[in-house]
Amino acid sequence: MNLQAICHIPKSNYAYPYKENELHIRLRTAKDDVDQVEIIHGIKYDWKNNERHVMKKILTDEFYDYYQYNIICEDSRIGYYFGLTKGEKKLYYTELGFADKFNDDFAYCYFFQYPYINKVDVHKEPSWVQEAIFYQIFVERFFNGDVKNSPPDLTPWDADPDPKSFYGGDLKGIIDKLDYLKDLGINGIYLTPIFQSPSNHKYDTVNYFEIDNYFGDKEVFGELVQRAHDRGIRIVLDAVFNHCSNLFEPFLDAVEKGRESKYWEWFFIEDYPVKMDPPNYKTFGHVAYMPKLNTANPELKEYLLSAIRYWTTEYNIDGWRLDVSDEIDHLFWRDFRRVVKEINEEAVIIGENWHNALPWLMGDQFDSVMNYQVTKLSQDFFARSEISARSFEKGLSSLLIRYPDQVNEAMLNLLDSHDTERFLYTCQGRKEKLKNAAAFLFGYIGMPCTYYGTEIGMTGNYDPGCRKGFDWNQEHWDMELYQYYKKLISIRKKEKALQYGDITFLSTDSLFVMKREYNKECIYILINQREDVADYNLPKSSFEYNYVKELLSESEWKLEQGTLRIQIPAFTAFYIKLAEK
Amino acid sequence: MNLQAICHIPKSNYAYPYKENELHIRLRTAKDDVDQVEIIHGIKYDWKNNERHVMKKILTDEFYDYYQYNIICEDSRIGYYFGLTKGEKKLYYTELGFADKFNDDFAYCYFFQYPYINKVDVHKEPSWVQEAIFYQIFVERFFNGDVKNSPPDLTPWDADPDPKSFYGGDLKGIIDKLDYLKDLGINGIYLTPIFQSPSNHKYDTVNYFEIDNYFGDKEVFGELVQRAHDRGIRIVLDAVFNHCSNLFEPFLDAVEKGRESKYWEWFFIEDYPVKMDPPNYKTFGHVAYMPKLNTANPELKEYLLSAIRYWTTEYNIDGWRLDVSDEIDHLFWRDFRRVVKEINEEAVIIGENWHNALPWLMGDQFDSVMNYQVTKLSQDFFARSEISARSFEKGLSSLLIRYPDQVNEAMLNLLDSHDTERFLYTCQGRKEKLKNAAAFLFGYIGMPCTYYGTEIGMTGNYDPGCRKGFDWNQEHWDMELYQYYKKLISIRKKEKALQYGDITFLSTDSLFVMKREYNKECIYILINQREDVADYNLPKSSFEYNYVKELLSESEWKLEQGTLRIQIPAFTAFYIKLAEK
Repeated sequence: MNLQAICHIPKSNYAYPYKENELHIRLRTAKDDVDQVEIIHGIKYDWKNNERHVMKKILTDEFYDYYQYNIICEDSRIGYYFGLTKGEKKLYYTELGFADKFNDDFAYCYFFQYPYINKVDVHKEPSWVQEAIFYQIFVERFFNGDVKNSPPDLTPWDADPDPKSFYGGDLKGIIDKLDYLKDLGINGIYLTPIFQSPSNHKYDTVNYFEIDNYFGDKEVFGELVQRAHDRGIRIVLDAVFNHCSNLFEPFLDAVEKGRESKYWEWFFIEDYPVKMDPPNYKTFGHVAYMPKLNTANPELKEYLLSAIRYWTTEYNIDGWRLDVSDEIDHLFWRDFRRVVKEINEEAVIIGENWHNALPWLMGDQFDSVMNYQVTKLSQDFFARSEISARSFEKGLSSLLIRYPDQVNEAMLNLLDSHDTERFLYTCQGRKEKLKNAAAFLFGYIGMPCTYYGTEIGMTGNYDPGCRKGFDWNQEHWDMELYQYYKKLISIRKKEKALQYGDITFLSTDSLFVMKREYNKECIYILINQREDVADYNLPKSSFEYNYVKELLSESEWKLEQGTLRIQIPAFTAFYIKLAEK
Repeated sequence: MNLQAICHIPKSNYAYPYKENELHIRLRTAKDDVDQVEIIHGIKYDWKNNERHVMKKILTDEFYDYYQYNIICEDSRIGYYFGLTKGEKKLYYTELGFADKFNDDFAYCYFFQYPYINKVDVHKEPSWVQEAIFYQIFVERFFNGDVKNSPPDLTPWDADPDPKSFYGGDLKGIIDKLDYLKDLGINGIYLTPIFQSPSNHKYDTVNYFEIDNYFGDKEVFGELVQRAHDRGIRIVLDAVFNHCSNLFEPFLDAVEKGRESKYWEWFFIEDYPVKMDPPNYKTFGHVAYMPKLNTANPELKEYLLSAIRYWTTEYNIDGWRLDVSDEIDHLFWRDFRRVVKEINEEAVIIGENWHNALPWLMGDQFDSVMNYQVTKLSQDFFARSEISARSFEKGLSSLLIRYPDQVNEAMLNLLDSHDTERFLYTCQGRKEKLKNAAAFLFGYIGMPCTYYGTEIGMTGNYDPGCRKGFDWNQEHWDMELYQYYKKLISIRKKEKALQYGDITFLSTDSLFVMKREYNKECIYILINQREDVADYNLPKSSFEYNYVKELLSESEWKLEQGTLRIQIPAFTAFYIKLAEK
């Protein structure tokens, strides 16, 4: 056994409460290194009645196998350790290391423990996340619904943008297109920022309590939320708290009055007078027009949280996406969560963390983050064909083990956004690659999120190329792609196995294979990313089902002896559903 | 290379801010497996100016080597990855795994990152912890200073206790003995609970706002704090918030009124009427007279925190030790820290966590925990002679790597307490073993804590044996042991290397060796736990120092060629100090 590969970390993604009476325990071993892993667990004040169970191998990545066992417990004061078997060799793994025997008399010293599941520590996601299908709108580029509030000197809607272009997209434009979105089938919208700001992207806020004039006003926003809700569509707003605009009143006050300003401490200004080139204050990136906010300052904190309170309460929105969330202090986010969840326990909190975000995802801060790691893997596998199906699933496995199950269920999975190139661009226009990537995303665990226009074939490079105006002339649309998206969305909405199912990876040399299983149904997602037809043999256990359907083409057939082999054409995805009819 | 052994976890004990401008980065490899480890780090928004540094191997345990590099940074938005060399083989380790080459164009996707050091997230310990020398007093058994407030039916002071005995120890008794403690040399006292409670141990509180009548009153307590402070001795109180007494008024109210009681939600009562045998409410352990408190209940929380506020503010105490701290919710502890540190940033917070406590020690909850893992290792090595010096140092290494450096500096290290058997008892009375263990403890990183009476040779089994009355008849003392403790304490107080020094383990087959180094001084702690004389050769570099002294015996000599060899008698400890005189 490669003992150095074995890993368990108490109170982490390796040991966390899924519910108040359900503790998930994971263990890592080297890949293909161990025959069986058992968990021995008991109530720490009643150790003699401990139990022994075989753990299930749930995931495998390049180097490791991962095992999981879910303890259902009335008394959550739990001690546990692991038994590892390889051939004749049997070993125990405890908090103090490895041993040939476990001495129950000193159990308390040796076992790992989960000391207590306190209900408030359990990471409870909004109940709707597994059924959510998101759509991201870059507001300035979606639709100009009210030309009266448009900025001057508009760039023509169909011209290529530069970083400073204004097109006139607004909230009324979204209201006007809600039926389009309803028809597309999505049930959640994430809006890039809508508060007063001089830029087109509005990531440099001037006033956190007002809608940007070019986007509309509070009345229109209220109407948008109401009408979206009427259609069963949730609204998530973008909270930009890492920094503000250099035209933010308190910053101007500090610039003017220096240390005398009561806002001086809201920023990190080194010296007076304040200089912009180069800035003598902390900024986002090195961007002088985005001064960093001192979120530890109690007055600023209360100001920002009161804005959150205001929009969440008054407009009944369904959650927040948090800009540059990893550069803001953890105390701020903990208070942020408390404020939001006190108003609406069902509001979702989605961080913008591009890297491993576990320290924000243990239940006290975010529910979810934008899953740019899945974006990267999808680019590598689907768009750039740089990695194999097996490498792709190993990458996904590494990501799934990184977070608790409830976090994986709530991740915002995306192929592209306002901060990436369009996925179709990465595919060099090869639509079949985008379709396969979308088929993956809508079959995967977490909340699929479509960036406005990707569904009709919009393309473009990194900012500003990815921020073109949505082309509402349907003659320009890729209707086949659009219909494919509608199909994926409708399947995702209908199939419990895709929303709630356990996930198993089964890729072959030629095919990405992911099984989702829920109750007595299962769906095989088979994706052929190669130029040749690929074969796949369903396992014999498939005969237990008498109903087989390929959901994307809606072809239905009966499984008979000898017909387990499926042929998947080049660059095609199948959703094979098995059920007892 | 054993790639599966390599480990780095962002934002953990492997990557944490030590100060606002100092980031500590650690990496784990398999033991003796890698020739060199480098870190490549840069500011993430200015990656092209990245730097490369060799990491220092700081610790080794049974299976792994640990490397550390401390990044001093003005801009704390840091990306980093690792370079590993073994012979001709060179490999890079990034957040996405291993690679032969690192592509700087995609650096942002691949590097690990520390996104930002926000000052409020930095775990700042009280400034005094490295100079602290603690003494734990079980109040009821230390000294009866005021016979007027003694309970009836006292057990004679020198009789063996049973779990329900009362001896009459009180706060006045501690005041009376402050000069003893001052003379002993300690500068911090941790008192077991002093609030109203029917038991002798008082871990079942009846009133969090009153001193127990048998212990004294607020005036006496105020006097104790004042007089202790006058002598440079800090006072840490015991906070028992996991549970209370079944005679706690709010519990009695709930028992009486049922769900109508406004205190019903302060507890976890299943049903009315409330039953005690077996209890139909949650308890500590299975102890019916200790109902568990629902620390998530806002009113109870405010009640408990107001008690903390009261004692911390009004009596100017220096910190809190937290009973059964791992069974209480994290939200409670975060608010607790906020309350305490707002009153006194220099107050210390010490949890009672017997297992891996990292999730409580990242800066948002505790400063420290009672280091029962060091107790266990010390029992195994010093008292029971069950493990070798090398195993002992490997065990210590595993513990040191478990926490950030500032946490190690603040750990409360103990050989025994009211919850263990007396160390001398574990030693089966072999005093030389206790002396060696104490020599280790006072030389080790963290706050050494002596359980009352261990310094005079008190012995006894687990509760109640470890809770005997302090024997104030000096004729009964082991004066040699007592003098040894005084010596250790005086050395610890004087030597900066013992308080602030870096730690290196250098044990041999026959000797435990630990080097502490600070500025231009270093102290070798050499402990012989065997029946034979042990040799130790100081390294050649010792000639750089011209002053050598064995601090415990106060023998001084000059290093000359050929005299690097030191002989350590059986069961003896040496503190060899090297300095430039």
